[in-house]
Order: sequence, then structure tokens, then C-alpha cells
Amino acid sequence: MKLYTYPGAPNPRRVHVFLAEKGVQVPTETVDIMKRSNRQPDFLAKNPFGGIPVLELDDGSHLAESVAICRYLEALHPEPALFGRTPAEIGAVDMWIRRLELQLMMQVGLVWVHGSPLTKSVVPKQLPEMAEMAKAGVARTFDTLDASLGARPFFAGSAYTMADVIALTTFDFAADFLGLRPAPDAKNLARWHAEVSARPSAAAGRAPQRSAG
Amino acid sequence: MKLYTYPGAPNPRRVHVFLAEKGVQVPTETVDIMKRSNRQPDFLAKNPFGGIPVLELDDGSHLAESVAICRYLEALHPEPALFGRTPAEIGAVDMWIRRLELQLMMQVGLVWVHGSPLTKSVVPKQLPEMAEMAKAGVARTFDTLDASLGARPFFAGSAYTMADVIALTTFDFAADFLGLRPAPDAKNLARWHAEVSARPSAAAGRAPQRSAG
Repeated sequence: MKLYTYPGAPNPRRVHVFLAEKGVQVPTETVDIMKRSNRQPDFLAKNPFGGIPVLELDDGSHLAESVAICRYLEALHPEPALFGRTPAEIGAVDMWIRRLELQLMMQVGLVWVHGSPLTKSVVPKQLPEMAEMAKAGVARTFDTLDASLGARPFFAGSAYTMADVIALTTFDFAADFLGLRPAPDAKNLARWHAEVSARPSAAAGRAPQRSAG
Repeated sequence: MKLYTYPGAPNPRRVHVFLAEKGVQVPTETVDIMKRSNRQPDFLAKNPFGGIPVLELDDGSHLAESVAICRYLEALHPEPALFGRTPAEIGAVDMWIRRLELQLMMQVGLVWVHGSPLTKSVVPKQLPEMAEMAKAGVARTFDTLDASLGARPFFAGSAYTMADVIALTTFDFAADFLGLRPAPDAKNLARWHAEVSARPSAAAGRAPQRSAG
């Protein structure tokens, strides 16, 4: 087994944090996404959509998509359960993963693609109005997340799950790369972020010299 | 248990097709999304993000997000398995669900929001350039999906799974509401679409009088 990854990139970091929570080690190979190595034919043969992370299985096949890789690893290493145990837990974890991805990460991605100088070459044309609209969407989502989280320890309830992995990596990417953060009065998110950031797993998959910028 | 839904809407339809494949019936209540009933306080108390479908559980709690609802129902009714059985199957099904959602449905959604006369009031301002860019992305994704599907019977392999449910409902929404279809030479997708559309489950959750236009 081998994980194709890149230090500091938000989607690979999900798998690294997940593996740290599981106490499982997987050999890695760095794919230089800044040089677009993930868009070259040899990598596209592994993942035709070109994204990382990708997990190479022992039979030579490849599994793409961060959350799918973690679900596969959960099936191999069930403890501690990070996708829930009971039907209600399984549903709640997936609901929160999806809310965080579709309501938060998707909008963060639009700000990234249409509003960052680092992604100028990724789209035919950057649309600053799209970036601004998505930025407003990110702010609204942070507010809704803060109200929904309330006093619960973690997004899906009383246990740390994959939903918290997604939230942590997305929050940090939004803050570090785009300066997007929850409003100062979002006390529930601030409390949650401090707690999950204090876990040893939070250090996994971060770029070595990244500033907290 | 009760499912809040709306006939013809693509995300609720996923749950209806899933239930038909399972042979399970769940009572439903229609939420008039055309009148924005899903944005009223009593519905936001069920799902603060305002989307449908939402499943009301017997304890009075609510589960949102189509795929999370199906995962919950899969845990209650494991047969036939629509999310895979082995670790490799579980990983492959989730990989395809995510590719179809993040690479296809997300772009279809941007065309819908920024390019349809029906969604003018949904965004502060429609950006026609965004709709055009997303339309080009949809075409590229259809091409990649066609090549990746190849001669496999279904997206995740030899068995019909939740990935096929997502693909069917997304393809039909893109075609019916936006006129977006795979290129005529995408033979693998055409063969797959004909096969899954012929299953009795394909009729579930469609609007009664919707034209094929």
C-alpha cells in the first residue's frame, strides 16, 4: 500500500490526520502538485480526475478521493471508529461530512480558484465576483455551523469522527491560504477548533514551514 | 419515520430510487421548495441548511443529506448492499459517489444557479461566465466518466450501487432542466444510462408530468 500525497494540501491532510487518529502508518510518495505532476499521463492513469490523495492498493489498483480512502482504511482498521457504529451515528457522521464539504469546502474552493493569485492558471478566467459571492457564502456557513454545533463536543456528537477531520482541515486551509475564518463571536467553533487542534493528530500532513498566517 | 421530499427534485429522487432498489417504503411529506417552504423557520429547525431531503426519525430527530439518509437506511436494511461489502467495494462505491458529486453535480449546480431563469432569486447576481465555465467543466467530466466507465456494467464494478443512483439522478437533472448531456460518442455512458433507466427503480421520485425535453 502507498499513499500519493503532498504536504500541506488540504485533501491529503485529511488522510494523514485520519491515519494518526487510527495509529496506522502507510508509506507515502510525494506528487508535486505545484509542478502539476498530478496532471501528467502516468498520474492520470492512477486517477483520471487528477486529484490527490490516491491510495495504491497491494493488487496495484488505485483508490482516489480522501474520504473514500479513509472509509476503506476504516474497514481494514475498525478501531477507533471514525465513521460511527450505530445506524444513527453512521448517518450523522455522513451528514456532517457532506455539510462541511458541500456547504463549506465547495465555497472555500471557489474563493481559492477565483480569488487567489496562486490559481490563476487553473481556470480559463478568474471571476472576482464569484470569489466575493463564495466568500459571503463561507461566512454564512460558518455562522450556521456555529449555531448547529452548539455545546456538542464534536460535529457528529460526543465522539471525534471523520466529520471533525474534514472540518479541521477545511478551516485551516481557509484560514492559512485565504484568510477566511469564523466571526469572532462564533464561540462554539472557536472552542471546538482549539480542542481538535490540541490533539496530536492535528500536526499530521501539514507543510513543515507553514506559517499560521 | 418520515421523508420530507419534493417530486422531481434531484437530491430527494436519490432517496426514492434507493428505497425502490431496497424494496422499502417510507411515508413522505412534500415540502414546496418552489414556494421556499424549506427556508421557513419550522423547516430550518429540522435542517438549518434548508435543503431537502430530510428524514425524520422515530425519536423526533432529523437526518439531512441524501447520501447520509441512504447510508442510515442501508444500516437498517443491509440487503441488497448498495454501498459495497468488502473494504475494496466500500472504497470504490464512495470514490464514485464523490467523483460524481464533486466533479459532476457541483458543476451542474453552478450551471443551474448561474445559468437558469428559474434560479434568478437564489443568488445575489447570476454570473453568465460562471455558468459557461461550469458547462465546459460538465462536458469534460462526461468525457472522463465515459472513458473511466469503459465496459464495466456499473460505476463501481459489477454491481448496481449508490454511485449509479447518484449518476442517474444527476444525468437526468442535467438533461431535463439544463439540456446538458454526454457527447453523442460517449457510448459507455449511453449503454449504462439505458440499462439503469430500464430498472423499475428509475421511475421513483420523478415529477409526474415532467417532459423528457
